[in-house]
Amino acid sequence: MAFKTITVKTENAQQLVDITQQVRLVVRESGIISGVCRVFIPHTTAAVTINENADPNVRRDILNRLEQVAPSDGTYLHTEGNSHAHIKSSLVGSSVVVFVEAGRLVLGTWQSIFLCEFDGPRTRNVMVRVSAGMLPPTISTMPNSPSV
Amino acid sequence: MAFKTITVKTENAQQLVDITQQVRLVVRESGIISGVCRVFIPHTTAAVTINENADPNVRRDILNRLEQVAPSDGTYLHTEGNSHAHIKSSLVGSSVVVFVEAGRLVLGTWQSIFLCEFDGPRTRNVMVRVSAGMLPPTISTMPNSPSV
Amino acid sequence: MAFKTITVKTENAQQLVDITQQVRLVVRESGIISGVCRVFIPHTTAAVTINENADPNVRRDILNRLEQVAPSDGTYLHTEGNSHAHIKSSLVGSSVVVFVEAGRLVLGTWQSIFLCEFDGPRTRNVMVRVSAGMLPPTISTMPNSPSV
Repeated sequence: MAFKTITVKTENAQQLVDITQQVRLVVRESGIISGVCRVFIPHTTAAVTINENADPNVRRDILNRLEQVAPSDGTYLHTEGNSHAHIKSSLVGSSVVVFVEAGRLVLGTWQSIFLCEFDGPRTRNVMVRVSAGMLPPTISTMPNSPSV
Repeated sequence: MAFKTITVKTENAQQLVDITQQVRLVVRESGIISGVCRVFIPHTTAAVTINENADPNVRRDILNRLEQVAPSDGTYLHTEGNSHAHIKSSLVGSSVVVFVEAGRLVLGTWQSIFLCEFDGPRTRNVMVRVSAGMLPPTISTMPNSPSV
Repeated sequence: MAFKTITVKTENAQQLVDITQQVRLVVRESGIISGVCRVFIPHTTAAVTINENADPNVRRDILNRLEQVAPSDGTYLHTEGNSHAHIKSSLVGSSVVVFVEAGRLVLGTWQSIFLCEFDGPRTRNVMVRVSAGMLPPTISTMPNSPSV
């Protein structure tokens, strides 16, 4: 098990930042061969998603369409001017999970992990946790048995 | 590992109910120091999200904007009158994960966990599961080694 | 712990395919009695969600409303014609988690797991991972203790 917080400085008001390499590094450092990697965003005006890493226009299209759902200059009850960012955060979500096999993230060919900044620029924390998989109880206890 | 179902009575047709304290209690009772807490909603017209707990207007803005995406009085093929709630449920999601460190939920300053009621008022079940983290196999088996 | 990739051939451009039975089979084969099952989609124009399995119109309503948020014939910067599918993928999400108790998926009465095809028809991979739950460290090591 490994738990690490990485820091990402965003540069724009709204931006999808590819954090796959930083997450890969946490997985490598964990030494875990097979398990699960979870990425969690401890903010309420940011999110995390998995999407295409090849054409940067995909990221812009995602932001543009979210902006149509919750415009940054729309009318809201919350008066801090970032209600649109809170809404986008709940639509996209606060965490993703990626499997780990052979010590590596199991991502599809086109998949990367993106921090979604909706109220930047800011310094954001990204929490990454890697857990080793576990065999069923009857099997997992065998290697430790005193009689073996 | 601990698994518990908590019950929440919602009071409105659409409402975000802060369930953080109930989830914290399950974590405390579990005795787990380091691990992961998962919250799962076994309903198809409700959801769970993490967002701001300070200004209640944020919750209203989220509900208002979801209502624009899928109006409760819109036209749908499903004739039970709650198709909007099913759609909102899939947009927001059926589960969240929060890390546990030092026996406590690791939430950001402004984060709380909210049951999202989209077709209330009803009595809703919220399933909470807390799992202890696991060290990599070579390390985790050391304390149990017969030679120690 | 069990990790398996199942293959799903979708038949339409946009479609929600019930994959609950295939996931149940992976859980059964894993032999895990109590734990967590995660479903992950390694594609960026598909997703996975949990929603109602009874009335197929619910699935159509979900697709119709997502189509209003990101129309397949809308204007996008990404020129491959499937930007709408990337956007829907991030709105719905790349993974779901379901608890496992008594060797079975713990789903609500009306819940099924759906692969969401947004850019089909295609052959899609669905990764399923089942992990056994773990007791708190002090308890879980007891059965292996040499002195017991």
